[in-house]
Amino acid sequence: MRIEHTTVGIVGAGPAGLMLSHLLALAGIASVAVDARTRSEIENTHRAGILEHDSVRLLVDSGVSDRVLREGHEHRGIRLRFDGADHRIDFQRLAGASTWLYPQTAVFADLADARARDGGDVRFDGRDTAVDRLTGDEPVLRFTDADGIEAELRCDYLVGADGSRGLCRAQVPAEHRTQYFREYPFAWFGFLAAAPVSAPELIYARSEHGFALVSQRTETVQRMYFQCDPGARVEDWSDERIWEEMRRRLAGGDGFELRAGPILEKTVLPFRSFVQEPLRYGRMLLAGDAAHTVPPTGAKGLNLALADVRVLAEILERAVRQRDPGPLDDYTPRALARVWKAQHFSYWMTTMLHRDERGDGFDERRRLGELAGIVASEAGARYLAEGYTGWPAAVPV
Amino acid sequence: MRIEHTTVGIVGAGPAGLMLSHLLALAGIASVAVDARTRSEIENTHRAGILEHDSVRLLVDSGVSDRVLREGHEHRGIRLRFDGADHRIDFQRLAGASTWLYPQTAVFADLADARARDGGDVRFDGRDTAVDRLTGDEPVLRFTDADGIEAELRCDYLVGADGSRGLCRAQVPAEHRTQYFREYPFAWFGFLAAAPVSAPELIYARSEHGFALVSQRTETVQRMYFQCDPGARVEDWSDERIWEEMRRRLAGGDGFELRAGPILEKTVLPFRSFVQEPLRYGRMLLAGDAAHTVPPTGAKGLNLALADVRVLAEILERAVRQRDPGPLDDYTPRALARVWKAQHFSYWMTTMLHRDERGDGFDERRRLGELAGIVASEAGARYLAEGYTGWPAAVPV
Repeated sequence: MRIEHTTVGIVGAGPAGLMLSHLLALAGIASVAVDARTRSEIENTHRAGILEHDSVRLLVDSGVSDRVLREGHEHRGIRLRFDGADHRIDFQRLAGASTWLYPQTAVFADLADARARDGGDVRFDGRDTAVDRLTGDEPVLRFTDADGIEAELRCDYLVGADGSRGLCRAQVPAEHRTQYFREYPFAWFGFLAAAPVSAPELIYARSEHGFALVSQRTETVQRMYFQCDPGARVEDWSDERIWEEMRRRLAGGDGFELRAGPILEKTVLPFRSFVQEPLRYGRMLLAGDAAHTVPPTGAKGLNLALADVRVLAEILERAVRQRDPGPLDDYTPRALARVWKAQHFSYWMTTMLHRDERGDGFDERRRLGELAGIVASEAGARYLAEGYTGWPAAVPV
Repeated sequence: MRIEHTTVGIVGAGPAGLMLSHLLALAGIASVAVDARTRSEIENTHRAGILEHDSVRLLVDSGVSDRVLREGHEHRGIRLRFDGADHRIDFQRLAGASTWLYPQTAVFADLADARARDGGDVRFDGRDTAVDRLTGDEPVLRFTDADGIEAELRCDYLVGADGSRGLCRAQVPAEHRTQYFREYPFAWFGFLAAAPVSAPELIYARSEHGFALVSQRTETVQRMYFQCDPGARVEDWSDERIWEEMRRRLAGGDGFELRAGPILEKTVLPFRSFVQEPLRYGRMLLAGDAAHTVPPTGAKGLNLALADVRVLAEILERAVRQRDPGPLDDYTPRALARVWKAQHFSYWMTTMLHRDERGDGFDERRRLGELAGIVASEAGARYLAEGYTGWPAAVPV
């Protein structure tokens, strides 16, 4: 058993864990991030690719990489398609901000490269992770490293950034936490296709056949989604059936043509909302998916994780400087203010755009009334644009 | 059996029926409105008292009465109270419009007086109403008048403005209509109190104990509401218990003091959303509550009825001038565009402000996140103000 010490132990070296490690290093605070996966496993897990304005600024301003600005695609708006017509939400005009299409795997690679470049201590392939002594003065993180050596990492503070299936949040005793859940009666069928770009910006389509989303990846590979039953199986969906379903749902829109091609990958993505409160237990803090999950509509997951660690880095710096865990009390209320706004935004975009087969159609008609009201009102469209691009910095969150 | 003829027969002489009759008269079109109730029965049915900007304009500009401007109270905003603090939505600054506190019974009295003044043909106390031959060229309205004489009124067009418990909408055969329903897991307990004014504007309060609404009637009589179980019975609520409950739910707010007094009237108001489509069947058209019901939050019911008949009067005038029912086809889409916006607005205000005991609290926390987002965003607050004051005239509805 090798015993080590660091200031902040981080469980999870995905984007949240690595960004935290990077921000702490900028503040002169030592950390070790441990992840059960190898770097290439993480790099090959495809996820959402929409970054809010402030997420891009965080990556660039903190010196991680400006690759997002060179290789990402700036989206100055989205299209909402319903009742067979397109309505553009112009982010720049309405909210003075853009979002950027840049895959989560690229964000991860940039962060991992930056940590390697700056001498950051990141342990991939660290198995049998466990945490202990969370309410003491020196919590510990135990794991078996890539060479098979058992290690005990003693820390001043421990951060659980180990995702929605991670171990950390379960370590908070039930009587010290509240968990909030929401299930949805549908899921997303996501696929990657070798096809040219169909539209320059994302198209969120509500149709009587269900939701569909046209998004992009590169000039030759596209990422698209459509609403499906949570029990849908990829083997039941041939390429032909997928394209036919997408065409049905995307009918309408000025001069729009869905450009098809061979499908490279198919996945069913579950829909779930989850929050665990508080975000602190003793000297352990939860960040990103380890603390909360949002449904994918509106692409808030990664952005929310980055917003968490931006707040957490600042609070940990104060605690370390003051040699006192007192400042940690600020983390839960500050982070949750944004989390619940984002939970609402994700729920709202989801329910407004998806078809719920339950009921007599009242909600279907009401949602179309809402969409018509949103696009007819400058204020309504701006409210949506602010939420999508991540709320203006002037808004206290 | 006395046989009569008129251009437009109107079932129901509440605000919708009388306003339609008035607008038709201004266009030189004859009508007869028949209501099963006596004038004093209608005048003593207390209902919501918030008029949108355009409803006030319709009353004043069409020459019904300017009493609303003299005796009503202009409300230039409302207060949202949640998490123990007040947030004012400034209608004038945000939407350039006000609402007016003016009881529905006063609207009815003004309309009834205007019809009497202008020689309008209104038959109160008309029993045993029935409609027939709706798809023919001459629909009929049969009733027994106040003197006990049976009458058959033959019309070119028939309008069902006979409210949510009226007979007209049920005359549309099931295969020719769709009905949309939504029930809610709560109701409103409404009461009139002999008490001084507690607040100059309406206060919509969301609390962990449920919703409460402070509104006003006169300097000495106040109208207030609180969320209750749909099965609540007025006899279970003593004056003391009511005031105690109101105080619990209205805790917070700068210098706010709830001013109590003897309670004059107690009612449990059901919550329901309903729409029947289309609004036309043959030569019969439905308007107001006969076609749709909204929950009371946001006070859209009367305003929506007045918006219906404003559109309907214009369409009936075209049909009469052209001696052709063709223009009636325009009524359903034009009226429903506003109806579904208002259905959404009423649903939104209701669910955002009420406490739903079902579930694990996810929606409670999410709704607080939404409210925080609305009041922190100029655009969000404006979107709400536009809906509450009735959407700007520039917006096509």
